[in-house]
Amino acid sequence: MSELDTLIQLLARLPGLGPRSARRAALYLIKRREQVMQPLAAALGAAAAAIRTCATCGNLDTADPCAICRDPERDSSAICVVEDLADLWALERTGAFRGRYHVLGGTLSALDGIGPDELNIARLIARLGPETELILALNATVEGQTTAHYLADRAAQSGARISRLAQGVPLGGELDYLDEGTLTAALKTRRAFQ
Amino acid sequence: MSELDTLIQLLARLPGLGPRSARRAALYLIKRREQVMQPLAAALGAAAAAIRTCATCGNLDTADPCAICRDPERDSSAICVVEDLADLWALERTGAFRGRYHVLGGTLSALDGIGPDELNIARLIARLGPETELILALNATVEGQTTAHYLADRAAQSGARISRLAQGVPLGGELDYLDEGTLTAALKTRRAFQ
Repeated sequence: MSELDTLIQLLARLPGLGPRSARRAALYLIKRREQVMQPLAAALGAAAAAIRTCATCGNLDTADPCAICRDPERDSSAICVVEDLADLWALERTGAFRGRYHVLGGTLSALDGIGPDELNIARLIARLGPETELILALNATVEGQTTAHYLADRAAQSGARISRLAQGVPLGGELDYLDEGTLTAALKTRRAFQ
Repeated sequence: MSELDTLIQLLARLPGLGPRSARRAALYLIKRREQVMQPLAAALGAAAAAIRTCATCGNLDTADPCAICRDPERDSSAICVVEDLADLWALERTGAFRGRYHVLGGTLSALDGIGPDELNIARLIARLGPETELILALNATVEGQTTAHYLADRAAQSGARISRLAQGVPLGGELDYLDEGTLTAALKTRRAFQ
């Protein structure tokens, strides 16, 4: 197999790229050899060599503990549990949370054979204490909510306060287009109008 | 900027990937460091180093002349002109053409300041002779057809036969959904029913 075919096959494995877009991406890269292709090769190598998993929270960083776990400005008594690193990034982009995180690495799934031991749960429980707030920021899917209930059970004996993200109408959401589950949740947890 | 941010920024420059999918791709890669990330870094480096442009036809290959220009089984008297390498690949996937190619590298465009000298045209004219068939396989766009007319003019004095891809109803095409231009072309070039 030629260098070009190898490259296209590997690019096609990236999420969001199929065989056709992988060919387009390969062409794009070859036409921009100095500006993009060689820097990308170097960046992949550098990231593969440098990035490690934070032993405390499961975040990825070039240092362990990660920048968030090391930051003395961040409140270590608030631990926000997320399924995946992408969720941590999404919350960080809001700038609204100044505590620490814990990345589970997935959700419980009997179908896929993912039990508590496959997830980063034992380390989470070890971080909890009576002074801790545990914020369950799991996806509002069946798996996410099952996992949230399991974690709340496991965390109970630590004495930590347990909270979860509010459910309701998203910003800009039109009621007409929302599913009944969301509307029901928004109605049940309605708040006083200031 | 961290290694991860550099990687995400470079991935986001690929066609078909935006900032969001670049983040997903970076996560995917880091989770598959040995299986995908390091091989991709190596493949990019190898392709950047090995791939060159065929001086004869403008194809990309690890050798110059390219595998198609070198292949003695392929008819060197039929030269199929395409705009871009992606078009050459599309035609090669059909397996229906056993001649040689010529990659223009774009189309004439007064707006973008692309004249005949910016395209791989002089080398094409030099390849033509009275025994040659020049097949214009340019896109059925205004720019593609303008370029086709220009090439046909330039090629006329070589004595080469000049042909172009048929226009008409695509396979599986429903007349109801086709534009008038295609239907008009299909009607004008209608053929006897066997």
